Amino acid sequence: MKVTLERNHLLKSLGHVHRVVERRNTYPILANVLIKASEDRLELRATDLDIEVTESVPAMVATPGTTTVPAHTLYEIVRKLADGAEVKLETEGGEQMLLTSGRSRFHLACLSPDSFPDLKSGSFGHTFSIPAEALRELIERTQFAISTEETRYYLNGIYFHTVENSQTGMVLRAVATDGHRMARAEAGAPEGSSGMPGIIVPKKTVGEVQKLLDGAEGDVAVEVSDTKIRFKLGTVVLLSKLIEGTFPDYERVTPKNNDKEMTVDRATFATAVDRVSTIASDRGGKAVKLSARDGQLELSVTNPDHGTASEELAVAFETDGFEIGFNARYLLDIIAQIRSESAVFLFNDAGSPTLVKEAGEARALYVLMPMRV
Amino acid sequence: MKVTLERNHLLKSLGHVHRVVERRNTYPILANVLIKASEDRLELRATDLDIEVTESVPAMVATPGTTTVPAHTLYEIVRKLADGAEVKLETEGGEQMLLTSGRSRFHLACLSPDSFPDLKSGSFGHTFSIPAEALRELIERTQFAISTEETRYYLNGIYFHTVENSQTGMVLRAVATDGHRMARAEAGAPEGSSGMPGIIVPKKTVGEVQKLLDGAEGDVAVEVSDTKIRFKLGTVVLLSKLIEGTFPDYERVTPKNNDKEMTVDRATFATAVDRVSTIASDRGGKAVKLSARDGQLELSVTNPDHGTASEELAVAFETDGFEIGFNARYLLDIIAQIRSESAVFLFNDAGSPTLVKEAGEARALYVLMPMRV
Repeated sequence: MKVTLERNHLLKSLGHVHRVVERRNTYPILANVLIKASEDRLELRATDLDIEVTESVPAMVATPGTTTVPAHTLYEIVRKLADGAEVKLETEGGEQMLLTSGRSRFHLACLSPDSFPDLKSGSFGHTFSIPAEALRELIERTQFAISTEETRYYLNGIYFHTVENSQTGMVLRAVATDGHRMARAEAGAPEGSSGMPGIIVPKKTVGEVQKLLDGAEGDVAVEVSDTKIRFKLGTVVLLSKLIEGTFPDYERVTPKNNDKEMTVDRATFATAVDRVSTIASDRGGKAVKLSARDGQLELSVTNPDHGTASEELAVAFETDGFEIGFNARYLLDIIAQIRSESAVFLFNDAGSPTLVKEAGEARALYVLMPMRV
Repeated sequence: MKVTLERNHLLKSLGHVHRVVERRNTYPILANVLIKASEDRLELRATDLDIEVTESVPAMVATPGTTTVPAHTLYEIVRKLADGAEVKLETEGGEQMLLTSGRSRFHLACLSPDSFPDLKSGSFGHTFSIPAEALRELIERTQFAISTEETRYYLNGIYFHTVENSQTGMVLRAVATDGHRMARAEAGAPEGSSGMPGIIVPKKTVGEVQKLLDGAEGDVAVEVSDTKIRFKLGTVVLLSKLIEGTFPDYERVTPKNNDKEMTVDRATFATAVDRVSTIASDRGGKAVKLSARDGQLELSVTNPDHGTASEELAVAFETDGFEIGFNARYLLDIIAQIRSESAVFLFNDAGSPTLVKEAGEARALYVLMPMRV
């Protein structure tokens, strides 16, 4: 292999692929990035056996060839090279790759590309194209609710599926829950997505896709099979395993008859919750109590060690004397997702799940379990 | 106690004093800040038994009084109150302090001020005044070399003393070392400092003083006794214990006869060291080798696991065929302190301490022990 390319092209691409490489690996080959030079392109690939990211960049290839070198080391070296520099990569024999740029020379230990794992994609039954912006929204609005409890592995991701919404027609819906709160967001179902199997995309994949979407425009090509998903964004291809398991019937826990409606000013409410929760301790579960009386909502927190906090704000709420408690952190997470000036709460009673959504037509819906206070 | 003051005054002052409070405390009172209202001022004080920070801010005092409340909680509450808000503090009985601001109410658990520790200042034998800028410089240029090894407690701070410099006259000198590198910086000796005992100011104190100096102008009043030091900056007073112990005779390890002089471009050298050290592992000690030959300096790193790195740069150096190794991290720390465009190295041989300083008249001097490479 003998190839010359621009440092900035190489850096951008390594930035995309190296992140998937874990810091500690049982198999040395997993610490490496596969580098393949052929026909005016350099292809880079990295994997953690669950996710595989591939990107190719323009390069001047004098001698085609393939090798693998430590991913994080290569990324750090290229990051530290001067902006706009030219980088030359050469393999000599196969045990080392020589990287030269300006007056810098690096010999990097190689491992044979033969043992580099291949996350076989198989065949994809469903293929559709979704605007980057829409996919970013679906992820952003639900990601925070993903469970990290390993025992409930089927909750460790976002559940994507298509469903008929009585008001807006066929939609692509994203759902995440950890049993304490649930987030649900929708986008118009892209052509070709309808009828795809419900899939659970793992948390790490979601995070990687989100980083790739950062600043991206245009469309993302998505391919889905029963066990894998593939995203194509410009020159980057991310292939990931799906979580095998059954996502719980979230419709069953989505309240249908919550008729006590309260509207609050989002920003005022969020600052007040943040303020009173200062006094909450981890031991006390960070519970904040909401008490409605005479068009006023009192937020209060009691911590046996530190003291008490309370704050009042004006709300639109017809039910008088209503009280309910929530985990302050969860409440703030949800409020942070509300894009309208007002947030709408729909309560049933102090022991039942509460619905939170934006004012007007809402493309996202949040369910929050109460806490006893 | 009943007092009203501006949230911004209270926040700024709490910002100064609360930092000294440790997150975990054996004695509950150490988690608290002392609040004392008297004669149109509110005084705040916090301590960790080694450092005590006091500040007073303007306030409308309706009823004088003193109490103590959790420092970090109070700081967080005040930080989250609206910019420009008014804050009212009231004690009721003595078990709780009521803080009100706008529609927020907090009851904070109090502890009696009687048990609040007092870091008795004693009497100070030496008093002087130093420009904030000069004190900041002395700290910035030496702080990085402070040892964190607890067994060598006498190296866990900056050693300040006055000394006659043959070229510049009487100076206030700051020295720090961890046995691997030494940093020494000087400022003209302020009036009244001459003849003060050599003192070791602890690392934590140095850090706190540095934060107080951030953006400060004018002079800092410094008072020194055998066991304590007091800094007065505007309305803030920081009193600290000194490290009891004898600072080693650093003059003895400062090379006098290093005659091999090498001048490098600081920025070029720093980037090159940073680049080649990418390949160094913690296991290999991050050693970088410097080899001079024909007006060229080669920097190289060998890591048995990852590979090798080398880079060449032009230098002004008359000795040919000279080789020496340094810890890359230590070398970069020192180079980062050089303010001139060039850095000057003075070598003896590959086994002896090397001097590093700025080109021209240098107010700081660095000594670096070599590594075998």
